[in-house]
Amino acid sequence: MEYSKLKLSEEKVFKDPVHRYVHVRDRVIWDLIDTKEFQRLRRIRQLGTTYFTFHGAEHSRFNHSLGVYEIVRRIIDDDFHGRPEWNEDNRLLSLCAALLHDLGHGPFSHSFEKVFHLDHEEYTQKIIMGNTEVNKVLEKAGKDFPKRVAEVIAKTYEDKLVVSLISSQLDADRMDYLLRDAYFTGVSYGHFDIERLLRVIRPREDQAVFKYSGMHAVEDYIMSRYQMYWQVYFHPVTRSAEVILTKILHRAKELHADYYSFKQHPIHFYSLFEDEMTLDDYLKLDENIILYYFQMWQEEEDPILSDLCSRFMDRNLFQYAEFDPGRQFKIHSQLEKLFREAGLDPDYYLVVDSSSDLGYDFYRPGEEEERLPIYLLKQTGELRELSRESDIVDAISGKKRTDHKLYYPEDLIYSDSGNLEVKREIRSILESL
Amino acid sequence: MEYSKLKLSEEKVFKDPVHRYVHVRDRVIWDLIDTKEFQRLRRIRQLGTTYFTFHGAEHSRFNHSLGVYEIVRRIIDDDFHGRPEWNEDNRLLSLCAALLHDLGHGPFSHSFEKVFHLDHEEYTQKIIMGNTEVNKVLEKAGKDFPKRVAEVIAKTYEDKLVVSLISSQLDADRMDYLLRDAYFTGVSYGHFDIERLLRVIRPREDQAVFKYSGMHAVEDYIMSRYQMYWQVYFHPVTRSAEVILTKILHRAKELHADYYSFKQHPIHFYSLFEDEMTLDDYLKLDENIILYYFQMWQEEEDPILSDLCSRFMDRNLFQYAEFDPGRQFKIHSQLEKLFREAGLDPDYYLVVDSSSDLGYDFYRPGEEEERLPIYLLKQTGELRELSRESDIVDAISGKKRTDHKLYYPEDLIYSDSGNLEVKREIRSILESL
Amino acid sequence: MEYSKLKLSEEKVFKDPVHRYVHVRDRVIWDLIDTKEFQRLRRIRQLGTTYFTFHGAEHSRFNHSLGVYEIVRRIIDDDFHGRPEWNEDNRLLSLCAALLHDLGHGPFSHSFEKVFHLDHEEYTQKIIMGNTEVNKVLEKAGKDFPKRVAEVIAKTYEDKLVVSLISSQLDADRMDYLLRDAYFTGVSYGHFDIERLLRVIRPREDQAVFKYSGMHAVEDYIMSRYQMYWQVYFHPVTRSAEVILTKILHRAKELHADYYSFKQHPIHFYSLFEDEMTLDDYLKLDENIILYYFQMWQEEEDPILSDLCSRFMDRNLFQYAEFDPGRQFKIHSQLEKLFREAGLDPDYYLVVDSSSDLGYDFYRPGEEEERLPIYLLKQTGELRELSRESDIVDAISGKKRTDHKLYYPEDLIYSDSGNLEVKREIRSILESL
Amino acid sequence: MEYSKLKLSEEKVFKDPVHRYVHVRDRVIWDLIDTKEFQRLRRIRQLGTTYFTFHGAEHSRFNHSLGVYEIVRRIIDDDFHGRPEWNEDNRLLSLCAALLHDLGHGPFSHSFEKVFHLDHEEYTQKIIMGNTEVNKVLEKAGKDFPKRVAEVIAKTYEDKLVVSLISSQLDADRMDYLLRDAYFTGVSYGHFDIERLLRVIRPREDQAVFKYSGMHAVEDYIMSRYQMYWQVYFHPVTRSAEVILTKILHRAKELHADYYSFKQHPIHFYSLFEDEMTLDDYLKLDENIILYYFQMWQEEEDPILSDLCSRFMDRNLFQYAEFDPGRQFKIHSQLEKLFREAGLDPDYYLVVDSSSDLGYDFYRPGEEEERLPIYLLKQTGELRELSRESDIVDAISGKKRTDHKLYYPEDLIYSDSGNLEVKREIRSILESL
Repeated sequence: MEYSKLKLSEEKVFKDPVHRYVHVRDRVIWDLIDTKEFQRLRRIRQLGTTYFTFHGAEHSRFNHSLGVYEIVRRIIDDDFHGRPEWNEDNRLLSLCAALLHDLGHGPFSHSFEKVFHLDHEEYTQKIIMGNTEVNKVLEKAGKDFPKRVAEVIAKTYEDKLVVSLISSQLDADRMDYLLRDAYFTGVSYGHFDIERLLRVIRPREDQAVFKYSGMHAVEDYIMSRYQMYWQVYFHPVTRSAEVILTKILHRAKELHADYYSFKQHPIHFYSLFEDEMTLDDYLKLDENIILYYFQMWQEEEDPILSDLCSRFMDRNLFQYAEFDPGRQFKIHSQLEKLFREAGLDPDYYLVVDSSSDLGYDFYRPGEEEERLPIYLLKQTGELRELSRESDIVDAISGKKRTDHKLYYPEDLIYSDSGNLEVKREIRSILESL
Repeated sequence: MEYSKLKLSEEKVFKDPVHRYVHVRDRVIWDLIDTKEFQRLRRIRQLGTTYFTFHGAEHSRFNHSLGVYEIVRRIIDDDFHGRPEWNEDNRLLSLCAALLHDLGHGPFSHSFEKVFHLDHEEYTQKIIMGNTEVNKVLEKAGKDFPKRVAEVIAKTYEDKLVVSLISSQLDADRMDYLLRDAYFTGVSYGHFDIERLLRVIRPREDQAVFKYSGMHAVEDYIMSRYQMYWQVYFHPVTRSAEVILTKILHRAKELHADYYSFKQHPIHFYSLFEDEMTLDDYLKLDENIILYYFQMWQEEEDPILSDLCSRFMDRNLFQYAEFDPGRQFKIHSQLEKLFREAGLDPDYYLVVDSSSDLGYDFYRPGEEEERLPIYLLKQTGELRELSRESDIVDAISGKKRTDHKLYYPEDLIYSDSGNLEVKREIRSILESL
Repeated sequence: MEYSKLKLSEEKVFKDPVHRYVHVRDRVIWDLIDTKEFQRLRRIRQLGTTYFTFHGAEHSRFNHSLGVYEIVRRIIDDDFHGRPEWNEDNRLLSLCAALLHDLGHGPFSHSFEKVFHLDHEEYTQKIIMGNTEVNKVLEKAGKDFPKRVAEVIAKTYEDKLVVSLISSQLDADRMDYLLRDAYFTGVSYGHFDIERLLRVIRPREDQAVFKYSGMHAVEDYIMSRYQMYWQVYFHPVTRSAEVILTKILHRAKELHADYYSFKQHPIHFYSLFEDEMTLDDYLKLDENIILYYFQMWQEEEDPILSDLCSRFMDRNLFQYAEFDPGRQFKIHSQLEKLFREAGLDPDYYLVVDSSSDLGYDFYRPGEEEERLPIYLLKQTGELRELSRESDIVDAISGKKRTDHKLYYPEDLIYSDSGNLEVKREIRSILESL
Repeated sequence: MEYSKLKLSEEKVFKDPVHRYVHVRDRVIWDLIDTKEFQRLRRIRQLGTTYFTFHGAEHSRFNHSLGVYEIVRRIIDDDFHGRPEWNEDNRLLSLCAALLHDLGHGPFSHSFEKVFHLDHEEYTQKIIMGNTEVNKVLEKAGKDFPKRVAEVIAKTYEDKLVVSLISSQLDADRMDYLLRDAYFTGVSYGHFDIERLLRVIRPREDQAVFKYSGMHAVEDYIMSRYQMYWQVYFHPVTRSAEVILTKILHRAKELHADYYSFKQHPIHFYSLFEDEMTLDDYLKLDENIILYYFQMWQEEEDPILSDLCSRFMDRNLFQYAEFDPGRQFKIHSQLEKLFREAGLDPDYYLVVDSSSDLGYDFYRPGEEEERLPIYLLKQTGELRELSRESDIVDAISGKKRTDHKLYYPEDLIYSDSGNLEVKREIRSILESL
């Protein structure tokens, strides 16, 4: 029998706290989960530094990837199965793309990507197409199968319905991470009726749509997403840890450029520092490796690197204040000057961080970030764009919300050493923000 | 005001998926959580290798420690408060002991303790009494306060009621880990009515007891515990990962003893290998460090070390079969011989692992492992030992149950290389088990 | 000791699926729960005819009343306790008002109030002030205590903070019913983080307010409320059952006015029909009584009464279509005419039902239905009205949403008997709506 | 197309709090739910008088019946489907039997059956075979289809596998009621992993069995059942209400036999009193009707009837004491005598109630109540009886546990009126129990 058609002799399950069980019947899926590249996702947290704020959020991308696969499996096997708009030939392709969509994520992706100009989507493509165990499994399922899987994840695949299952404003990826992140953090937001969404999802030529009768479940999902972004993902304490993490990477890169002699040679970072990252180097990175260095670097002689690493390891984070970079740029300059006088390098100890989110958007052709809108399917077969039907969604539609915060080391500024006069001045400015 | 009496200006909470919120009002507790020794518990998983079986089980001992603290806080503040048998002076002591009871755990404690003859309880004592941030905080609360906290955890403290809150057959430690491990693994066992247990718990001179009306809640707890042990903690796949982990440690120790030249020098292990562990060395160990070495050791020249490390990193675990070491010792010898012939060192590739548990026990004075029984409190004031009242508990009381499994690398034995004749013989024995 | 200060020798609890336990310590509360007027609430469903749509929604107002009491108890004992803005003297008053706030509800209140011009709030007052067991208990707690409790419920009590606990846009009443109705129906809307709301609620002179840091929990509550209204409370099937129920009551009243001779004399209805309801008569009404009559009336000779009662008992409800009474009044007249020709009295068989809701409103002095807005409390002590701070709430604020449906007996219109020509015409109109 | 094969144009669902959704695809099932006999189950509570103890337990048998149907549907469609041991022809039969298995239950079945020698199973048979809407629907699906459905429910159907789905020690009936009753009461017992049980259930010739790997889930189910019996179903307060209910029925029957002239003629009871119940009479009975009479009878002149009815309506229940009818029969006689002297008829006011349960039993051929044991299926195909494999189940296997209580009206015995001397004597005996 063809490998792509092989079924396990008996269905296997993974116990999953979010979906109860993840069901695997296909040999290809089972083999993909067993690859070293997929197992590596166990060593990369789903939510980066969020565990410093919500201690339960220690779950890995491995968890989430299985969850996305399971949701797509249910959509395809329970709801799309037998409908004329759905091409059953796309089943395995969809499942593989769902399982592998986050494969290229590295440790603390957000910060790493910013500092080293990496792109996890690019690495997902490389892992799928490169000399990897994942590629070997996919290739057994069909000569051009790896390429097709890669295209689905890259959103360039011709069948847009398949693409929409994992990349749209209401896809399996988002459904899983909202539910999963809510579960592990323990927050009560993030719950929506996924059973109902999966009951009303329907295949259409260009994308998956939702029966009109499920509109309120869709609204509820949009609201959950909104709450999760502002309550969890953009939590100021999480961002504080991320600011420190980013600054550690900056500092290490800068020291390396300055021929600083590390006690612990950052061999895993060399190719990062020099923009010569190979796929093999990349696959060796994970959060254990990074945290190993951070722990070792606590003992480096460079006081900034050592201080920032200790802060990260011991969760001695920066304090924050509300800050409006547009109106308050003068205050910022003033603070920079004062920080320097107080012996604190403002490049590392006075950081503005901005988070912004667009809760939902309808289709704006030609704009920077085109988004596929969510469509509701009327009984007549007509499709209606969500924000035209829902008052609540309309209210947040297309509105970008941004939050700026100014981060600084409160302990150093309130300590009794150094230039107390200057520190007093800094404090009075910070307290007035 | 005395430091030990200081309250935070406003209660702080941690969002906890198990207890909803963990509440902190005491300055001492807040400061203890902030110490580097306590933050280190974020880097040690609660359930060791269990995440290889239940992918949700990635939670840390930090989580659990907060949970135990919260349960003791509720017992003391909601239930014991104002009762004559409870000495309010023991409040802070109990809270600190609850929070810190697992402080000495190292990475993958179970395996490390076995291979290197460590004892996490000893290290908990050392951290509390040694030159640490934790010790400094405790000392501010009272000259002999660190010592008293250490005694409670060591079960030598004179007030046995305080000891029983975190060390008995139905204590805050067990209550938290059963609920928490059930939550993160996603299994449905492990749930019991903690609200009810906390409502019926009562202080008595020597230990906490439970009102008779709560007997069924106690039974339910005992059954949950039983199920969690056999369904989760002793899961054969988890034990397979642990077998490999243990063998990696053995191998590295052996290589070090043989003056093997590591590419990646195991500096963090030196004092372990040579039984000269200092407290500082110990505190530097965490699971990131260990996994860093395992990843690096995949490229060592020693084939056993490298193979075992790859297995651990990529979750390519050993297969297992039922095995009775008593009756089947001849088979074992035979297999050992055949493994050697097949080029597989049986010391590393043929491993018997035994797990055993005693679900509940009444008091057997003088026996090796004396256990404090659970007492039910009748309305008359009389105390009755649980197993005398409950048929179900009586049924498992004092009965040690043991499970033996034989672990081996199925892939190597079923591979097409090497001495096929011998491998065929091995397979036929293994399949007959 | 004064009766109003008496505590039970040991706290009593009710197991509650929503709040886990309802805790009672006060003698007065215990005695109130034991009164016959309070026990009567067991025989009145919380959600009227909703159980025809959501079969789990069979819970009574007794349930809900305990829940509201429990929420107020937690607010007062856990959060307000010891704050200078809170007057501890109002504790028992608040608890009693919470427990008794729905005491005057009759069977299927919504329909009964409409048909017979009753007002459950008026009856709550009468029960508290009249010759009842409830009144006797309250009077033991203080001569003017019944009056004060009645005033709190009537919103005329001078201390507006106390009033706001059970009568405002975010009060204990709404918190309980949203959570409870979500639980019993099984819908996933209706969940919000009550723990967090109870943590951030603060007493102020005129009302309870919420700490600014809890804004998202408040938003979540507002959204839950919105979803529950449109997904559960205004569900078209529930309204269909209510239309039939209302029409049964109308018919019985009309028949009585016409001196129709009932086989089953509606003795419990006499005073309703003749607007001479006494408190005693009222207290004898409950849903068992009403359903007894409906069952008996299935055998009345009046074909309309008998048909409607059978529909209600056997859940043979009316079908519905979207309808716009403003634009489609001509169609309505036309249908009325055709229904008459088909032998169907349109007064009973062609019914427009409209539901409307205002999700949240800020303060509009002088308007018909003044609503107390929800205030957020900044760290500076400043109060901010919710809709000015929250985009989402602003989006639905002050916007009344209305839904109209036209109800009719599909079975009769599609049956093969009677004037088929006319029925065909009716069908073609109904299908075009 | 044959009626028995007809599918609804689109799957319909019922929102269910326990199973999330109940799915209906078959026309026959949809039509059965719409029958008046099935809708009648909405007016009969699942747990009789339990709502007096656990106020959430107001759910009806309608709820439970849908749940049992849903579980059998899942077993058949998800797990048995395609397995050689399962005959797909039995699908609809099994679904109908599951849905209708409780159809014959009357109001407060337990008490009514005891007093009036009714048997709800007999009525289930009559409703299915008689002149009813249910019978008409079933007959459309096949001439002998009603008979076959009736046989499955009566356990006389030849295919024992089908019978075992709803009548065995681990069947869909029990699975649903344990989960459902736990949900509505809010207790934490009663949870077991139904997902896992449904994954490991397998068809065998004579009954459904469970894969060996699911043994712990089966154990957990047995323990849940045990706890639910003792914590919920046999709760002494529930039994107190049932004692009163039973005594009301006895009294009314006795009064009728004595030609007592009721103010409210018990027309619905006549055929009960005279053992001439027709199917039509029976179908008219529901809990509304019964509670209507109880409310009216509060005003009867017979003091016993009136007192007992008020107790039931106002939840003024009997108090209880532990009692051993074997050893304490002398005390009982003595109390009877004293009760008479105190003017309290011991037939109504001094009641011994005994509850007993057999948690699990293996097969004892020839014994009174033969029970089909639960079998575990080994990978070899061998079947093993549960209690031989599981220590815990073995512990409770075959052991009947009985609880006796003595019920009496505490208020009357502690009141200050009547023969105080005698009452003092009664109290001193009762307090010594």
